[in-house]
Amino acid sequence: MSSDTIKAAIVGATGYGGAELIRLLQAHPHAEVSCVLSSSNSGTPLSESFAHLTNIMDLELEAIEPAAIKAKADVVFLATPAGVSAELTPKLLEQGLKVIDLSGDLRLKDGALYEKWYKRAPASAEVLEQAVYGLSEVYGEAAAGRSAISNPGCFPTATLLGLIPAVKEGWIDPSTIIIDAKTGVSGAGRGTGLGTHYGEINESVKAYKVNAHQHIPEIEQVLGETAGREVVITFTTHLIPMTRGILSTMYASVSGSKSTQDFIELYESFYKGRPFVRIRKNGTMPATKEVAGSNYCDIGFSADERTGRVTIVSAIDNMVKGAAGQAIQNLNLMMGWDEAAGLNFIPMYP
Amino acid sequence: MSSDTIKAAIVGATGYGGAELIRLLQAHPHAEVSCVLSSSNSGTPLSESFAHLTNIMDLELEAIEPAAIKAKADVVFLATPAGVSAELTPKLLEQGLKVIDLSGDLRLKDGALYEKWYKRAPASAEVLEQAVYGLSEVYGEAAAGRSAISNPGCFPTATLLGLIPAVKEGWIDPSTIIIDAKTGVSGAGRGTGLGTHYGEINESVKAYKVNAHQHIPEIEQVLGETAGREVVITFTTHLIPMTRGILSTMYASVSGSKSTQDFIELYESFYKGRPFVRIRKNGTMPATKEVAGSNYCDIGFSADERTGRVTIVSAIDNMVKGAAGQAIQNLNLMMGWDEAAGLNFIPMYP
Amino acid sequence: MSSDTIKAAIVGATGYGGAELIRLLQAHPHAEVSCVLSSSNSGTPLSESFAHLTNIMDLELEAIEPAAIKAKADVVFLATPAGVSAELTPKLLEQGLKVIDLSGDLRLKDGALYEKWYKRAPASAEVLEQAVYGLSEVYGEAAAGRSAISNPGCFPTATLLGLIPAVKEGWIDPSTIIIDAKTGVSGAGRGTGLGTHYGEINESVKAYKVNAHQHIPEIEQVLGETAGREVVITFTTHLIPMTRGILSTMYASVSGSKSTQDFIELYESFYKGRPFVRIRKNGTMPATKEVAGSNYCDIGFSADERTGRVTIVSAIDNMVKGAAGQAIQNLNLMMGWDEAAGLNFIPMYP
Amino acid sequence: MSSDTIKAAIVGATGYGGAELIRLLQAHPHAEVSCVLSSSNSGTPLSESFAHLTNIMDLELEAIEPAAIKAKADVVFLATPAGVSAELTPKLLEQGLKVIDLSGDLRLKDGALYEKWYKRAPASAEVLEQAVYGLSEVYGEAAAGRSAISNPGCFPTATLLGLIPAVKEGWIDPSTIIIDAKTGVSGAGRGTGLGTHYGEINESVKAYKVNAHQHIPEIEQVLGETAGREVVITFTTHLIPMTRGILSTMYASVSGSKSTQDFIELYESFYKGRPFVRIRKNGTMPATKEVAGSNYCDIGFSADERTGRVTIVSAIDNMVKGAAGQAIQNLNLMMGWDEAAGLNFIPMYP
Repeated sequence: MSSDTIKAAIVGATGYGGAELIRLLQAHPHAEVSCVLSSSNSGTPLSESFAHLTNIMDLELEAIEPAAIKAKADVVFLATPAGVSAELTPKLLEQGLKVIDLSGDLRLKDGALYEKWYKRAPASAEVLEQAVYGLSEVYGEAAAGRSAISNPGCFPTATLLGLIPAVKEGWIDPSTIIIDAKTGVSGAGRGTGLGTHYGEINESVKAYKVNAHQHIPEIEQVLGETAGREVVITFTTHLIPMTRGILSTMYASVSGSKSTQDFIELYESFYKGRPFVRIRKNGTMPATKEVAGSNYCDIGFSADERTGRVTIVSAIDNMVKGAAGQAIQNLNLMMGWDEAAGLNFIPMYP
Repeated sequence: MSSDTIKAAIVGATGYGGAELIRLLQAHPHAEVSCVLSSSNSGTPLSESFAHLTNIMDLELEAIEPAAIKAKADVVFLATPAGVSAELTPKLLEQGLKVIDLSGDLRLKDGALYEKWYKRAPASAEVLEQAVYGLSEVYGEAAAGRSAISNPGCFPTATLLGLIPAVKEGWIDPSTIIIDAKTGVSGAGRGTGLGTHYGEINESVKAYKVNAHQHIPEIEQVLGETAGREVVITFTTHLIPMTRGILSTMYASVSGSKSTQDFIELYESFYKGRPFVRIRKNGTMPATKEVAGSNYCDIGFSADERTGRVTIVSAIDNMVKGAAGQAIQNLNLMMGWDEAAGLNFIPMYP
Repeated sequence: MSSDTIKAAIVGATGYGGAELIRLLQAHPHAEVSCVLSSSNSGTPLSESFAHLTNIMDLELEAIEPAAIKAKADVVFLATPAGVSAELTPKLLEQGLKVIDLSGDLRLKDGALYEKWYKRAPASAEVLEQAVYGLSEVYGEAAAGRSAISNPGCFPTATLLGLIPAVKEGWIDPSTIIIDAKTGVSGAGRGTGLGTHYGEINESVKAYKVNAHQHIPEIEQVLGETAGREVVITFTTHLIPMTRGILSTMYASVSGSKSTQDFIELYESFYKGRPFVRIRKNGTMPATKEVAGSNYCDIGFSADERTGRVTIVSAIDNMVKGAAGQAIQNLNLMMGWDEAAGLNFIPMYP
Repeated sequence: MSSDTIKAAIVGATGYGGAELIRLLQAHPHAEVSCVLSSSNSGTPLSESFAHLTNIMDLELEAIEPAAIKAKADVVFLATPAGVSAELTPKLLEQGLKVIDLSGDLRLKDGALYEKWYKRAPASAEVLEQAVYGLSEVYGEAAAGRSAISNPGCFPTATLLGLIPAVKEGWIDPSTIIIDAKTGVSGAGRGTGLGTHYGEINESVKAYKVNAHQHIPEIEQVLGETAGREVVITFTTHLIPMTRGILSTMYASVSGSKSTQDFIELYESFYKGRPFVRIRKNGTMPATKEVAGSNYCDIGFSADERTGRVTIVSAIDNMVKGAAGQAIQNLNLMMGWDEAAGLNFIPMYP
């Protein structure tokens, strides 16, 4: 490791998000995992929870103590359930630690909105203000030098990357946006319940949390900021029988006459120089397998003269660009490193 | 078998649709499969093509000859690729056979529309006129006593059952309809290609034929008839990693103020007495697994005050209600039998 | 229903085995489900636990009370976890009810063996003696007129049907038997835990309970009886990413010189007249999909001169022939009805 | 890239093996892909065949010409169907190129054996002699400085790593070895056919090529060499519904009295210092998911006193340790680099 290596603590290391951070950080040239923490199983080796880490990661799980973390780490990734980070982040910041939060706790800048959608007490206004919303390709500049990043949700990442350029340019009418998203099961985490039981999920597809998903206000917040006016969306999430991946299919009415090729060129221009957004040519559409295991977000377009609407489809790996990968991308931006440092994974195909 | 048993020929018996007709017809009280035909493999036992029929179905595959069919059957099910039925149906009708066509050849009443979307020569205007569009719960009465039925497409079945009551009552604005459909792989048939290769499909989801699917004009034709004016829809199909099932998620702007409960009651009333449409209560949503192997179409609703839109979700087994099951339902209606005869399969769960 | 219809109670109706009994019994000409019982959720409609039964099964779940069951039913199916039936069966028999137990409680005739492998107190010797081991094709005659049947385990069913003819004839050496079984996840039931979490199961295969599975003594008990001497087997179970199905691959040294064709003929002769065992010709091997949803057990053979061993492969649907289907087959045999009554389901393919 | 970087050509780049080589080589510190070749599609960008390589790999496919390859590359990976490498390898060696062959053409040292099992003409005796059998952990030393490596088959890799230490030490009787292997579908390659059709594979498991798989003589050749006498095995392969992974379950009679712990210690000692073999402790067994995307081979043991047999279970990713990963490991050994260079991928979980 070079002299500018930093030490990373992972809180919530027994979950899928934690495991993915470990997988990705091992390939990072400037960071290493120095401690793993969890609200349960402290004192046991992490490889007892995750056999795939046998011989790779020998660290023992530790209980979550801000001062103890400070002694071992420079930056903390929080891969924790809703509610944890709202309380923990201020304590970590006090210790002088940098924080990258993968939960939803710091994303909504309006605490009342958080309370409405998450049914929990929000983080303090002070912490909410400190935390930059880390949609890397859009707010990356704001991350530089900051001490707290709120990593976007998996659905918002796929969706916002697919909508922001068109909304910003006024090419689509924000009041007509309808988003139909499909996700693999890993997004539900490693907790057990009928909702993740193989027998219930395999050979089935269903819609869930229709018009009630907590990622709705997150998407609306950013689109509203982009459009310069309030945006209200229709958003449906579907659970499909696969482990990883999100496909977001987005519909909106086109303002004026724009072709598929026009959209392709707009987006190529918008994302020029950003390594992880790939614009698909000629009306071809992405598949989630084509980004599996990688930090890419692939986007395709079909503008339809018959209906005056455009269909935009984006694909990400929910565990990478939708969680751990973007968190590391944000670490890179925060530290002033190359945005892609440690993230050059080619998608695993098939 | 009772004295009013009729004999059924299945053309295209080596495909998935053919196999499903055989599975379902075996349970039918008034029909039996008397011959199986295919453009290939004639002279070999069907169980060589489908090992699951070992000891169950001993028939040999026959070449497709209308007169020979007449000698063995009363009704013919056509589970054939596009183009076959347009040519074959008139010859079968001439023989005095009844025809139930599962292909898309007889669905579009406007031959020019067929030519545009299917890129093939259409059936003759005469045959198109003869064939009743067999969406059983809507056009069932028209089927009685007829000699030709055009069985609806799998996507149109799920979608139209989910939209017709609201369009008919003027509760939704037809010009705002957006349909996002997800299908299992069996819908692509048993033909081989990269598009059905396990390595390409598993652990992936993608959109295909965006704004170009041949089921678009079929849905528009029926919705237009229902609304009394031209309807143009946005429609996207997605291939997901499962074998059976279609979930259609439909979006539209609501006219006036209607609640989820209002929609539930409207649909319960509309489908009263129809055994195969099940309306879900209280905003719960169907999963395709909950209809697997059965002829049910389950429908759920979420009307959203925030957006003024309703989200309607319908689920079918694409091989049953989307193909072979509805074909038999149409046979029942055609013959004046109980609509549900031979179709009381409980969904196979899990 | 005809006058000889009997009423069936299902205990454990909220599990997968209970649901499958309901699916299959609906097609039965002489039986109907009259009450559904569970240790939890009593007083709620079963369709709240299983949405696929909406509009099909309106019964409410009841608490488990032998006298109350007697008032409503003639026969009781126990689809319960280990330990329940050992206690409940004597009480049900006292009430004059017939009992078909799908659990493992009554299978091992030696209580001490049960205690060793199940780590629980066994049923009383009296009850164990009363319960016929219901491997239908082998012990079917013993079931006639009896009041208690112990339905075989899923792995023993597939395995014993594949081994008994060869062991009985002395064609294979019982001391060389090695069994490698693969199962879908439904065999683990609807209970939740990391072991059935989609994220852990999908895209993975693993061996579990190696040399420790409680079905080992059950298989050994029957093979020992068949061979006329103690038999000790090596048996491994594997969990694979599918919902239904068991494939049992069995290996043994052949005594003397027997060809694949010799085995085929021996088994065809042994199972002559039994509708649910299908012997595959010419060295072809069964796939679990080819029996899905049906009561068939398909068996294929490959005798290998190079090694002097035979490989026997059997396939069943674990929920049907491995549980609910065979239970109904046993009801038929118990009542003197046609063995196949209500069980003529063609496998669902694909 | 450092000055000792070598250039690699990939023949068969449009197959899954080719794609995996590209994925892994991108992370290699001393190698880079300089040209991609295929018998079809020459002149088109590789990313047209593999959309996941969009923006990552811009190379165009080239026709296979040894002299042209020599102009661009130092080492050639052959990820080609049977028959290609037997002819191509001598021509590449003549050009002074190093060759790592992933096909089966150079594995069997006895040409007659190849002809029997592969039904094709074998490579010349000269080429067969030149090619080292590249089971890295066993024959790694022999690879150093050589110009041709024959990369082992996927099943042989998993199986031989699981058996060699016990056979070598005489702990198991080679004449009793039975191997039951399960593989994901990617092992069948990207070619299309009913055998890889999603509808046929999903929700199913079957045995194939029973006692007839071309990997049998490969395993026997190596075990025979290890045991110092002819070894004949029983070997069955099963296709299961997953994309990647092989689990090999191996059975043999134990010589003398050895415990599970004895086996664990023997294998830990045998593989000491080899980074990619992980021995599981305490009778725990590996799952293929725990090695997915990585070059690990995990091995677990259960010695059973009741039967006098040991059950050994090994897991690999068939595309990595079973193909592209081991090929790169062999490149490392051939070149004298660190065996693990470029291969430190943590398994992707879940």
